[in-house]
Amino acid sequence: MTQLAGNRTAAQTKAAAQKHLWMHFVPQPTEAEKVPLMVRGDGAYIYDDEGNRYLDGLAGLFTVQVGHGRSEIAQAMGRQAEQLAFFPLWGYANEPAAELAERLAALAPGDINKVFFTNSGSEAVESAWKLAKQYFKAIGKPGKHKVLSRNTAYHGTTHGALSITGIPEIKEDFEPLVPSTHRIPNTNFYRAPEHGQNEEAFGAWAAREIERMIMAEGPDTVAAVFLEPVQNSGGCFPPPPNYFQAVREICDRHDVLLVSDEVICGFGRLGTYFGAEKFGFIPDIMTCAKGLTSGYAPMGAMLARDKIFDAVSSDGSFFKHGYTFGGHPVAAAAALANLDIFEREGLNQNVLDNEGAFRSTLEKLLDLPIVGDVRGDGYFYGIELVKDKATKETFTAEESSRVLKDFVSKRLFADGLYCRADDRGEPVIQLSPPLIIGGNEFNEMEQILRGALTDAWTKL
Amino acid sequence: MTQLAGNRTAAQTKAAAQKHLWMHFVPQPTEAEKVPLMVRGDGAYIYDDEGNRYLDGLAGLFTVQVGHGRSEIAQAMGRQAEQLAFFPLWGYANEPAAELAERLAALAPGDINKVFFTNSGSEAVESAWKLAKQYFKAIGKPGKHKVLSRNTAYHGTTHGALSITGIPEIKEDFEPLVPSTHRIPNTNFYRAPEHGQNEEAFGAWAAREIERMIMAEGPDTVAAVFLEPVQNSGGCFPPPPNYFQAVREICDRHDVLLVSDEVICGFGRLGTYFGAEKFGFIPDIMTCAKGLTSGYAPMGAMLARDKIFDAVSSDGSFFKHGYTFGGHPVAAAAALANLDIFEREGLNQNVLDNEGAFRSTLEKLLDLPIVGDVRGDGYFYGIELVKDKATKETFTAEESSRVLKDFVSKRLFADGLYCRADDRGEPVIQLSPPLIIGGNEFNEMEQILRGALTDAWTKL
Repeated sequence: MTQLAGNRTAAQTKAAAQKHLWMHFVPQPTEAEKVPLMVRGDGAYIYDDEGNRYLDGLAGLFTVQVGHGRSEIAQAMGRQAEQLAFFPLWGYANEPAAELAERLAALAPGDINKVFFTNSGSEAVESAWKLAKQYFKAIGKPGKHKVLSRNTAYHGTTHGALSITGIPEIKEDFEPLVPSTHRIPNTNFYRAPEHGQNEEAFGAWAAREIERMIMAEGPDTVAAVFLEPVQNSGGCFPPPPNYFQAVREICDRHDVLLVSDEVICGFGRLGTYFGAEKFGFIPDIMTCAKGLTSGYAPMGAMLARDKIFDAVSSDGSFFKHGYTFGGHPVAAAAALANLDIFEREGLNQNVLDNEGAFRSTLEKLLDLPIVGDVRGDGYFYGIELVKDKATKETFTAEESSRVLKDFVSKRLFADGLYCRADDRGEPVIQLSPPLIIGGNEFNEMEQILRGALTDAWTKL
Repeated sequence: MTQLAGNRTAAQTKAAAQKHLWMHFVPQPTEAEKVPLMVRGDGAYIYDDEGNRYLDGLAGLFTVQVGHGRSEIAQAMGRQAEQLAFFPLWGYANEPAAELAERLAALAPGDINKVFFTNSGSEAVESAWKLAKQYFKAIGKPGKHKVLSRNTAYHGTTHGALSITGIPEIKEDFEPLVPSTHRIPNTNFYRAPEHGQNEEAFGAWAAREIERMIMAEGPDTVAAVFLEPVQNSGGCFPPPPNYFQAVREICDRHDVLLVSDEVICGFGRLGTYFGAEKFGFIPDIMTCAKGLTSGYAPMGAMLARDKIFDAVSSDGSFFKHGYTFGGHPVAAAAALANLDIFEREGLNQNVLDNEGAFRSTLEKLLDLPIVGDVRGDGYFYGIELVKDKATKETFTAEESSRVLKDFVSKRLFADGLYCRADDRGEPVIQLSPPLIIGGNEFNEMEQILRGALTDAWTKL
């Protein structure tokens, strides 16, 4: 049996995992030997306990921007953990958190200068909604508390974030949730219900739907609109041209806060520190996590404009919110080392230089009959699979389970590509690799995908 | 100016903190020089940027059980961060998370064998409520979704956890929250509204109030009761004798899940791995965080009985919940090293051996006219201050602000004791030191407290 680091065999570890380690968002494996066990990472590659190597096509989970095995981040974390591992922000500062806050404020667009640290993306979204509610009470508009968000958008799993999430399947077991959230259309142009021939007109329509919902609910009741720059769930939807400019105008017109949920798009995923920069708009609040530390430590953040902070901070008041581990010194040290690598290696520029090649390599797959659409931005792509390219007919539940889940996902993994091929039943393969890769890895992905998708077509 | 680790002066760091680092749950300091900056920890002591030393009377925030500066935890984190810093539990296992889950299951009481990892206590509480809701739907009782919790109890700040929290002052700006949570009495025997002369009768009454609320709401609608073994907020309320036994019977009678919120009481705070063990009851679900890693990395967990896991996992179903950073390899490595220290140094036994001395040392303060009550368990105490011991009269808001907040808190800190003297306006000094201390540090605390409280009396 393979001997692992801690004097345990892989079989023992897998048995412990199968019996006690509750898997997230997937069924628990019924047999210990079927638990995939990841033991090592190096750059864009990860390794299981049997020594098999996988190209990390998803950067863990849209997270490991600088790649695995970065000893300088590990060393920065170890040093800080020994110096001062933990002290709460409940009235006290620590060095890494203070420096990181200053650095994030400098990277953020506009007058977004205040940084509220959390431990996850869900907690960042929770914080943004709470801030929006307290802000409007502070400025004398206490009725503004509702949130609009898009169909199939994922914003997290805590009760508030889940209420904002637009995926009924992961909400229904937990109702009633927080009242007063409302769904608006997303920007899935491939399956546009209106203006399917003109992306700009489609974007203008999708933005107008936001204004219609604000009017339908009453502008005096709506606090915020939560949007990802490129929506992840549903299958990677970039914004149509001028979409965010139109949304910004609508939000200004009705005094509604525009929250850019940058948990996935932040930190280089699109070649910029924040997705808002890529698409040229200035949000009122941004939420981030994942790429902030490249996953080396759990950390999230909520960033807000000065005027919002000032409103809740006047007359000795304060934002009535906090997390014990917020601004964790070791996590902040990891984030600082992560940003050092971004700067020194020019990772944003690497994405901007190579995003065209990434797109064109993936678009080669459009010659396959099963590939309906290739869409995305930066190093973030979705490949939608279809039964019929002309009609865009999608799969039955049985086909989706048998071909995508049971065949494609397993085949890609067996062939050495880790990615998501059946995210919540959507027939979309998602790719979101570490930002350090280039042409060689693009080709490796394309070849593995081509083999699996060619064979998948014969299984239908 | 003091030169800090990262080539910045303390003044620069404080200015960055004042301008950009959003404080949690307190007003932002208005001047940079007034930001306390913590730079180093060693055992039970912490040091600010000017070299001042403080006894950490609060273990950071009920968190740093094994003390600061533990190089073996730092090294374990650094090693794991270099080997495999991050991989999600969304279908994959990693070695430290699997080993930690197995170890926690072995430490947990009864048949609590399944471990769902989170990044914080709030996320653990969110997970427990979501699990309770999905569990009752899975076993054919879909109407059971409500939660009971106690007056002034704190269970977290995300929307779900905040809904369960019983402190109106930190909720009112964020309403509407998740509907269907209800308050029951806490076990503040010092200010018991009933049976103030008989603690056991008071406990029986407080338990009966839980059953009354279940009946008033309808047993078919109530999913869970959330209780801390010793309630923190409000000022450290231990349970009366037989309270938890009565609550356990009531929960069984009405098929309501008993959730023990162990975020503060878990990991040795009371001299046992879980507070439930100290008080001899077996919950259905436990939530924990803080002491799990002694704060060296952000991590929480929700632990559940086999039958609950099995119910939501039958027929290929699964708990529809997850967190990107859940089961983080580096955080799990920190937790494992933390538990190694617990075992090797016998920290639980240290608490059990010394809790009597801790209590009797603090009870010396009862000779001061301002000290109304000393209460707690293990290494977790509250000292309630009063204006009149005979009548238990408390302070006006003005006195509370002027004497407790502006004088006592600052004086204790100036004299070298870090603790909380005015938690959310309650006139209670809370002590929750690292579990490594003994008689010398108890005496140091008592002496500093005696000086500050003696002088405070003259300021009233």
